[in-house]
Formats: sequence, C-alpha cells, structure tokens
Amino acid sequence: MDLKNLIRTIPDYPKKGIQFRDITTLLEDASGFQQTIRELVDPLIDLQITRVAGIEARGFILGGAIAQQLSVGFVAIRKKGKLPGATHSVEYELEYGTDQMEVHVNSVSPGEKILLVDDLIATGGSACAAVELIRRSGGEVVGASFIVDLPDLGGRKKLEALAISVRSLMEFEGD
Amino acid sequence: MDLKNLIRTIPDYPKKGIQFRDITTLLEDASGFQQTIRELVDPLIDLQITRVAGIEARGFILGGAIAQQLSVGFVAIRKKGKLPGATHSVEYELEYGTDQMEVHVNSVSPGEKILLVDDLIATGGSACAAVELIRRSGGEVVGASFIVDLPDLGGRKKLEALAISVRSLMEFEGD
Repeated sequence: MDLKNLIRTIPDYPKKGIQFRDITTLLEDASGFQQTIRELVDPLIDLQITRVAGIEARGFILGGAIAQQLSVGFVAIRKKGKLPGATHSVEYELEYGTDQMEVHVNSVSPGEKILLVDDLIATGGSACAAVELIRRSGGEVVGASFIVDLPDLGGRKKLEALAISVRSLMEFEGD
Repeated sequence: MDLKNLIRTIPDYPKKGIQFRDITTLLEDASGFQQTIRELVDPLIDLQITRVAGIEARGFILGGAIAQQLSVGFVAIRKKGKLPGATHSVEYELEYGTDQMEVHVNSVSPGEKILLVDDLIATGGSACAAVELIRRSGGEVVGASFIVDLPDLGGRKKLEALAISVRSLMEFEGD
C-alpha cells in the first residue's frame, strides 16, 4: 500500500497558502497504521534503542506504538508546564515568538540510546529542541523517525547538522 | 510486578492538597510499559474492537500502543482547535469554566466498535465528552480503559451511568 495516499491534504490550514498534511486519516486506517509502525520500526531493530522519546502530541501516538514494538520504555517530551516533576527546558523559535519543550530530569539516564519520534518534520524547531533535551540528560540520540518530511522547510538538514540520523516514510515537496 | 509501585506521586500538584499520580515513571520503565499494555489489551481480545480512540495527550501514548497490539486504527480525540478537518465538538465542565473536545467527523463509521483509552479517570469530564463524540459519529463505545482510577472523584460511575464498561489497572483512594 502507498501510505502517501492515506494522508489527507487540507488546503489553507492553519492559514492561507499552507497545505496541511493531515496524518489522522492514515492512523485511522488499520492496515495503514500497522504498515506505518512496521516501516518505522524495521530499520531500528539493530540500534539497541533503550527508550523512545515522543514529541507532544502526535508523536505520542507513534512513540507509544514504536516503544511497545521495540519492548522499551517511553519518554514524553512535552510543551512547557505540562510535566508535573522537575524538568529540563529548552526554548525554540516559532514563526512568531518562541516556545519551550521540556523533559523530566530523570527520564533519560546517561549513556542511553534514545530514538526520537514525531509525525512530521517541517522546520525542525521542536525536534532540535528535543535533541538538546535528551543530550542535556546525558542520552545519545541514535535516530529521529517521522512519517512525513517537508524537505523544503529544512528541518531534516538542521537535525543532520546535529549529527542525527533522520528517517522518514515519505516527502511532500513544494510545501 | 506491581505496576502501582512505578507510579510517582507528586504532592501539591498542580495545587496544594492534590496528590498528582504521575504515570510517566511507569511508561519509562520497559517492563512496566509492556506489562501495562498487555494487561490493558488482554481483556479486549474478544470484543471485536474496530478502532481505538485516545484522549489527548497521555491517552495518545497508550492508545497508539493498544491500537497497534489489536491491529486496528487509531482515532484522535483532541482539545478544541487542534484537529485540522471538520469536527464534532462537545463541551464539558472543568473545575472552573468549560472546555471542548473534538473528533473529526469521518473518523468513526456508523456501527463501529470503539475502545476509549486514557491514562487516568478522575471526574470523568473529558471521558464522558469523548463517549458523546463517538456516539454522535454513530460508533458504539464497547469499553473504556485506563491505567489509574481515582474512584472518589466519581468518573467511573459517570461512565457506567452511560452504559460504558470501564476497566482500570489500579485505584488510588482518598484522592
């Protein structure tokens, strides 16, 4: 099955001129969701990943399933103020202004091999912040996996400049 | 393993007098996470569930893993304004004021058997709203599964009054 056919494109969302790539239609499809997880997990088998870190919120859906498939634990990377315990916090840039991502201080142990997961890589702001959070905790980011890459927005290159191995199942160019 | 020992309690969060039951420490533990998913999934095998609906945001972690285990699709139940397509919307009460939960209008097909998933059931406000969203879409809620039930807050009873079969892995009384 070509998973790309299960992605819905919503024109002019969240604002005029943006083609929003909506993965919910893919996740809702039983075969599509299973194939997605399989294709994301297959290249990871030999990486000795110890935990999967998912980025709030859609990265939680994939991260939970991938952690379960790899038989490892799950680490939540959340927006500011959502985690109840002591956190590391990293600021990153949005189109207008900044936001912060956080991780609990003891979620990642020094030397651990962490896989980073989100649904889509665009400008890479939240993903690069997540890499910094994991490294600040002493973890090694052994890869970053996404369903969709929007290469024109440059996020993959930013991650690769941080020496992260990036995998995605499909690209949409011209976004 | 007694999964309850992997739950962290954070006193006076988010405000004085509240004992916050933090499941992130459970999800981070490889064995604990695997056992959690197994114990949540085992009683569901014969229910012919067609899709798992997870409530944003922690319900996404569990819902993704459970949908993957059941080989079915995943439906996102999100806070207002987060879903890009046309939605059903249901208002529910918070301690102060109200909020809204939404689901895409075509995420659930009429007659489908849906499992509802979240990490914790407290007052049941968001879970009852999610039930209404699924029913408005024509779906049947064949069960609602949680890691933690706080029975003193009455959510389970509210769901049972809606004829929902509720399962949880543990309770904390006196909360």
